[in-house]
Amino acid sequence: MRHTLAVLVDNKYGVLARVAGLFSRRGYNIDSLAVGVTEDPTISRMTIVVRGNDHVVEQVTKQLNKLIDVIRVTDLSSDESVERELALIKVNSDANNRAEIIQIVDIFRARIIDVAARSLTIEITGDEGKIEAIQKLLKPFGIKEMVRTGRIALNRGLKDS
Amino acid sequence: MRHTLAVLVDNKYGVLARVAGLFSRRGYNIDSLAVGVTEDPTISRMTIVVRGNDHVVEQVTKQLNKLIDVIRVTDLSSDESVERELALIKVNSDANNRAEIIQIVDIFRARIIDVAARSLTIEITGDEGKIEAIQKLLKPFGIKEMVRTGRIALNRGLKDS
Repeated sequence: MRHTLAVLVDNKYGVLARVAGLFSRRGYNIDSLAVGVTEDPTISRMTIVVRGNDHVVEQVTKQLNKLIDVIRVTDLSSDESVERELALIKVNSDANNRAEIIQIVDIFRARIIDVAARSLTIEITGDEGKIEAIQKLLKPFGIKEMVRTGRIALNRGLKDS
Repeated sequence: MRHTLAVLVDNKYGVLARVAGLFSRRGYNIDSLAVGVTEDPTISRMTIVVRGNDHVVEQVTKQLNKLIDVIRVTDLSSDESVERELALIKVNSDANNRAEIIQIVDIFRARIIDVAARSLTIEITGDEGKIEAIQKLLKPFGIKEMVRTGRIALNRGLKDS
């Protein structure tokens, strides 16, 4: 099972190495990781997708909390949180198939962000299922290059009140 | 100066710890990092934003290339690449100010992805400047929570031909 952990850390030198080292030493498998600053620039938020049962996640959380730079660890279960990922996909395209690709882009509410003679670059956000679905549809044209951010998530607003 | 490095790595256990450890040991500062799988599931792509001059980036690239799991390192300069980041922002909101927030969301071509009695959650993609601009406009309402993916980037299509 996959768990999404939101880890608030002090935005300090070497934190990422300490967190990544912990996962590696303990043998916990990271599916994706994204780090960015929060509304407070001294604090970064890591979103880590880790594979394992509840026991594993409990252990990871305990170990993370022992690290001095870690402020808070939250396990975001998918039904009570909104989850998104961003992907950029550069796909082979010329005048002949451009309309067909644009149609796919529209259906997925994606966006074209770069056009060249032989390619289109597409920006798409959604959960992993959505990104994999458009990837599958674009594959026959030939995907030249692709990059994904990994998942980020927030608790739903209902949870706050 | 900020550089965006695209690092293709074997999707193997412990790679992230080795890469993060290299940056930490050598004293290179990471601004953001995002890791996700590519069109080939055995290969992951890390996008690392590193602060430093050309010399630093050259050194980082050399060191990264020495790691056995690293397949390729590319320095994506901003004028020849498309760069995007995804942010989720949960902002205080009630019936009185909802319309005003929706207006801001529309202007930025952002999307509302969760509505609760006392909050709205907004999804926005763009470069860092755009995300910081909407953040600034939403701040007066009170930002409850925010998460960012860090930057991802692809070379423009023109560069390929």
